[in-house]
Amino acid sequence: MWRSRKRTAAAALATLALLATGAHASGVAEPRGPHYQDARAPVERRVDDLLRRMTPEEKVGQMTQIRLGKLRGDCEWTPGPLREDCMKAVLDDAEVGSVLSGGGDTPNPNTPRAWAEMTNEIQRYAMDRSRLRIPLIYGADGVHGHSNVVTATMFPHQIGLGATWHPELMEDLGRSTGRAMRATGVFWNFAPVSDLARDTRWGRYYETYSEDPVLAGALAAANVRGQQDGADGTAKLAATAKHFAGYSQPFNGHDRAPAQLPIRYLQDTVLPPFQAQFDAGVRTVMINSGAVNGVPAHASPYLLTEQLRERMGFRGVAISDWADIQYLVDRYHVAADYQEAIAMAVNAGVDMAMEPSNAAEFTRGLLANLRSGAISGKRIDQAVRRILTLKFELGLFEKPFVDPARADAIVNGADRPLARQAAAESVVLLRNEGVLPLSTGARKLVVTGDAADSVPRQLGGWTVGWQGVPAGSPLPPTTTVLQGVRAAVPTANVVSAPTRADAVAQAADSDAVVVVLGEDPGAEGEADTESPALTAEQQGLVDAVRATGKPVVVVLLTGRPQVLGTVADAPALLAGWLPGSEGGSAIADVLFGAVNPSGRLPVSWPKTVGDQPFTYDQPRGANVGESSDYDPAFAFGHGLSYTDFTTSAPVLKSTDVRRDGRVEVSVTVTNTGARDGTLVLPVYVHQPVSKVLTPDRRLVAFTRVALKAGEQRAVQVSFDVKRLAVTAGDMDDTGRPEVAKGGYEVLVGDGRAGFAVR
Amino acid sequence: MWRSRKRTAAAALATLALLATGAHASGVAEPRGPHYQDARAPVERRVDDLLRRMTPEEKVGQMTQIRLGKLRGDCEWTPGPLREDCMKAVLDDAEVGSVLSGGGDTPNPNTPRAWAEMTNEIQRYAMDRSRLRIPLIYGADGVHGHSNVVTATMFPHQIGLGATWHPELMEDLGRSTGRAMRATGVFWNFAPVSDLARDTRWGRYYETYSEDPVLAGALAAANVRGQQDGADGTAKLAATAKHFAGYSQPFNGHDRAPAQLPIRYLQDTVLPPFQAQFDAGVRTVMINSGAVNGVPAHASPYLLTEQLRERMGFRGVAISDWADIQYLVDRYHVAADYQEAIAMAVNAGVDMAMEPSNAAEFTRGLLANLRSGAISGKRIDQAVRRILTLKFELGLFEKPFVDPARADAIVNGADRPLARQAAAESVVLLRNEGVLPLSTGARKLVVTGDAADSVPRQLGGWTVGWQGVPAGSPLPPTTTVLQGVRAAVPTANVVSAPTRADAVAQAADSDAVVVVLGEDPGAEGEADTESPALTAEQQGLVDAVRATGKPVVVVLLTGRPQVLGTVADAPALLAGWLPGSEGGSAIADVLFGAVNPSGRLPVSWPKTVGDQPFTYDQPRGANVGESSDYDPAFAFGHGLSYTDFTTSAPVLKSTDVRRDGRVEVSVTVTNTGARDGTLVLPVYVHQPVSKVLTPDRRLVAFTRVALKAGEQRAVQVSFDVKRLAVTAGDMDDTGRPEVAKGGYEVLVGDGRAGFAVR
Repeated sequence: MWRSRKRTAAAALATLALLATGAHASGVAEPRGPHYQDARAPVERRVDDLLRRMTPEEKVGQMTQIRLGKLRGDCEWTPGPLREDCMKAVLDDAEVGSVLSGGGDTPNPNTPRAWAEMTNEIQRYAMDRSRLRIPLIYGADGVHGHSNVVTATMFPHQIGLGATWHPELMEDLGRSTGRAMRATGVFWNFAPVSDLARDTRWGRYYETYSEDPVLAGALAAANVRGQQDGADGTAKLAATAKHFAGYSQPFNGHDRAPAQLPIRYLQDTVLPPFQAQFDAGVRTVMINSGAVNGVPAHASPYLLTEQLRERMGFRGVAISDWADIQYLVDRYHVAADYQEAIAMAVNAGVDMAMEPSNAAEFTRGLLANLRSGAISGKRIDQAVRRILTLKFELGLFEKPFVDPARADAIVNGADRPLARQAAAESVVLLRNEGVLPLSTGARKLVVTGDAADSVPRQLGGWTVGWQGVPAGSPLPPTTTVLQGVRAAVPTANVVSAPTRADAVAQAADSDAVVVVLGEDPGAEGEADTESPALTAEQQGLVDAVRATGKPVVVVLLTGRPQVLGTVADAPALLAGWLPGSEGGSAIADVLFGAVNPSGRLPVSWPKTVGDQPFTYDQPRGANVGESSDYDPAFAFGHGLSYTDFTTSAPVLKSTDVRRDGRVEVSVTVTNTGARDGTLVLPVYVHQPVSKVLTPDRRLVAFTRVALKAGEQRAVQVSFDVKRLAVTAGDMDDTGRPEVAKGGYEVLVGDGRAGFAVR
Repeated sequence: MWRSRKRTAAAALATLALLATGAHASGVAEPRGPHYQDARAPVERRVDDLLRRMTPEEKVGQMTQIRLGKLRGDCEWTPGPLREDCMKAVLDDAEVGSVLSGGGDTPNPNTPRAWAEMTNEIQRYAMDRSRLRIPLIYGADGVHGHSNVVTATMFPHQIGLGATWHPELMEDLGRSTGRAMRATGVFWNFAPVSDLARDTRWGRYYETYSEDPVLAGALAAANVRGQQDGADGTAKLAATAKHFAGYSQPFNGHDRAPAQLPIRYLQDTVLPPFQAQFDAGVRTVMINSGAVNGVPAHASPYLLTEQLRERMGFRGVAISDWADIQYLVDRYHVAADYQEAIAMAVNAGVDMAMEPSNAAEFTRGLLANLRSGAISGKRIDQAVRRILTLKFELGLFEKPFVDPARADAIVNGADRPLARQAAAESVVLLRNEGVLPLSTGARKLVVTGDAADSVPRQLGGWTVGWQGVPAGSPLPPTTTVLQGVRAAVPTANVVSAPTRADAVAQAADSDAVVVVLGEDPGAEGEADTESPALTAEQQGLVDAVRATGKPVVVVLLTGRPQVLGTVADAPALLAGWLPGSEGGSAIADVLFGAVNPSGRLPVSWPKTVGDQPFTYDQPRGANVGESSDYDPAFAFGHGLSYTDFTTSAPVLKSTDVRRDGRVEVSVTVTNTGARDGTLVLPVYVHQPVSKVLTPDRRLVAFTRVALKAGEQRAVQVSFDVKRLAVTAGDMDDTGRPEVAKGGYEVLVGDGRAGFAVR
């Protein structure tokens, strides 16, 4: 019924809209077109106007996001060119308002230009069929650069970026990624990951910045600022805080197994990185696929409304994760049927469903709930309002298309120096018994190990494909460690030794051996492991080359701190994480001293497999006193340099602060060594007495200081007292966190200074 | 000041009290002695009367329990005879009302008679110095029999008893233990452990019955009934539900590290075994040393008052664990000083402090809090009332002493047949590829392995000493597996092979090899392990004897399911747990078929180390659907027999039940094999749809059926619908559990039957 009405009005409105846009562009008086098409009107008014005009069917279409596969090939999983009949079912019949590329959902050829042409074509089709010419928004996971595009520059994965402790760099990387995505018509990036790295068994560990909420929050917020900044003639971009919330600690380390998180832990540890991004203006959140305390996040009004909206003040769009509303029925069994699941999720606070596998079935379910009153019209309007607000704010109504002719130039090989800087800053020098830096005058070097010359291992998961570069795909242009070393010492004989026997044989007359160890690329549950440890074979290789007596450098290109076994006392040991396209150059920069390493561990490096979850900020316990239970191979914040630094005891501007005040800390740092270097300076707070357990120290702030050899500098760092807020009541407390009055100490380096909160 | 007043009144009162007791015993009219000494008066009145007469100093003394060491030797740690000056400080000056023997705090010689003489002497001293002749109560950990006494019979540890699924047996064991303890003047037993076995890394795993709350609760309640039953001319005994609550899941598996337990998990999983014991009338609880959700249990009014008293209805005495009030200051740092910690703990709900290291300091702290109003007189009276009620109810005012002359006869070697039965029923036959039972006609058998002939390993921790039988102590009379095998096949040549080389050499002409593997005895944090797995050496021994081609039986005498490695597919594999004094006889009974094994795993047996926590009742998750994440080496409930059973599909008496109703299940079970045997029959419930996550199946009831070869029998099992109650709200819900209406299924064997709750 409504369909014919829609058809009748569509052409006239389209004309009006184009006229309106034209009028705006040329600056002449506006024709009496629909108010929502007036780019000069406030967004809120435009949304009001548009919402008033929309049919229920149009509204629920906006709440739906469908994967690219449904628009092409066989309208299912087999890729192919876009097909009108596939697109019709999704974009026209179901009036779907958003499309996404899941990992590996790429055009063929997978070039920036082809992406831009594809997203334009989908956008054109959608707007032409939309009675009100509502643009769709296209989303993808650009989690380390525009990482679905094979020719894009792949930045290090988040766990490596966490080791930089460098928010400004995150902003640069976010800006670069955003620019690349926008150039291809992708205006919604499902990044960054805001979950914490608390269990090395979990398959998505490498996608997180840190185990620490303050470090992770600061880096994520900076990345969001970068991504959402700038326009370059296109619409703006929406970043995503994900996965809200409590995703990263499934009870047994297995992805999407339920989590057991007391509300205190949720509030004090899990949510702060999200708050940091909300404060930075992140436009969307993606919801945790998992369950917390017996309730799937997608079905929790407490999480998605009370916390997200009422306490944390988030105003953007909350999107489900992949197919998660259906999973309420067929995996979680909390709803008897799909229609009930839809009501449960939308009433909890889900604004948009990512990839309900059948768009028409989902929108029908929404409408049925609307008719029955199971979902109110008000709630539908609230969700659609958020989605339309996003589209207006990004400028999609005015700039729904991109210029394919510019895409290749903007994306291909973009910002390689930035990628190299990021990778170099992410390297953590774990051990160095006088082996590093290697001499650039070396005569012969042996490079061996499973990750020495492997592009897929160096780039990890979420690279072109979901589980990493797919078999048969061209490889993203990448400098491997072998290539990086060769380029760094062009005069040396750099020998690649693919096998252990080769490595031992070649080591005999070499100056040093570089062993590069990695792990299989993977993502999500497929990357879970019950044994987050170097394999016996990897340890055996290191043992064998060490037995030659030659200097041995072990480089770990892994997405998590692997339990090291016999490699723990290697004479030189570097964590290079999953360093991206320029990883090999960056590692070589550090190996030969062109870059003095400044990375510090953003996570704790466990000694044993049976020690999870494992973090520096574990609360004080009855048997452990001052966190003596924390016995890592390498501690949170650890990282060596080629120079030496000293840090004076901290001095506080005031030792008596208010709960809404700020603590200002001064220290003097000195580079006492012979090389320039950068010092990462974490600031912790210790609470001698606290009514609820606190960790022995909590990170509250940090900074980085570049110091020439011999240079001394006064450094100021400050933090809001509200950072000290914790859920203060008994074990069942669910109230808002608050700052306890009383004594605290600031810890910097080996020094400390006391202050009191009044 | 008060002391002189006390002295003045003491003698007269003592006389009156003796007269009163005498009057009662002889049945003549009561002289006008104090009412509280009238054994015929109701306990409540006696408590009222006594409480009214007591000074504040006398009251706080009752709230104090001090370790034996403080009464003897150097009044500290060095043992020795009881010393008047030591006793005076504790029992007279501080007026302490309770004494305990920590593990290893034994008289010398460690005989039942010496125990009885010692407790009598302490009691006599205490009562003589008590103005009101209040008896003290002596406590100890009799956790597997009267296990501090070297000549007592050691029963299997709880984890083995869990494998029996046999509540009536628990009652018998409890009765035996209680009788032995009472014979020695110990009227308070800090047992059973009611915590759940959810993480094999935890050092106290072996002290628990099961990972399942229904199984653990049923066994613990039966044990309590047995312990608290009967008098034998002495006072009665108080059992203890411990450790209340949330102790067994420290976040990383390390004893007393804090636990992260959502309130839903606490209520639905952790607390039910305690409720089962409260319903069975357990007289005391011991408080969890750990912290839950950031709050030490000892400082939580929510846990110790709202849950324990108001919701769960417990009316007995809540005692701290060892020194735990002090730990609020010096380990947890939740109190600024000891006095604050005392107020915190007592106001939370601690009635008695176990081993505050200085009695006078503790009682002074209590009094200071009373004076300042930090603790109310009403709260002190409430605590003391509970303690006095306990002493009256046990009959200690009437029967404070025991007869040392009878102690040896009652305790020494008591109930060895019961110990043998318990150990035999605890054996779980994990695998049997036609190897077992061994022929009693065997010519030569080899017995090897680290636990084949080791009394300390067979008995485990909490045996005479805290960490197991101390070096230098006589060994408790014990039949080892080697001895048991020799006794079972007196005509065979049973060769003990202490080394691997011996075993392999001796195997050559043998009929079979029995490899008995154990673990170091230990307790609490000292027994934690990050690698709950057989050692490489243990696996190597099994590999070596298997390589001889001879039939190999592996017997595991370990307190937890060890990850098996290459032993996983041994042709015959038995879990014998920590089987106690008669363990060797019982294992031999099973090996040679005198007993047909009926034990079933009370826990899940993990395949890998990195899989903790690991239980069968994990909730359904998004990636795992129907608990497919549950991939154990051997599942909860697994256990083979030498015969075969079939179980018909369950039939329900009614398929429509009320929330306060009962579900009655009938099945027909048949022994289809050629041997008599006992079938353990668990009854599970599956909830197809549940608003909050439920496990795929939950144990709700179980029974054991002994069946002759070929016998068929109809069996009825029933359970209260209230067993299905769960905390029903959102992830922050802290309300009372309730039963959801709707559809359920009963699962028995491979069959199922649906019912609805209205």
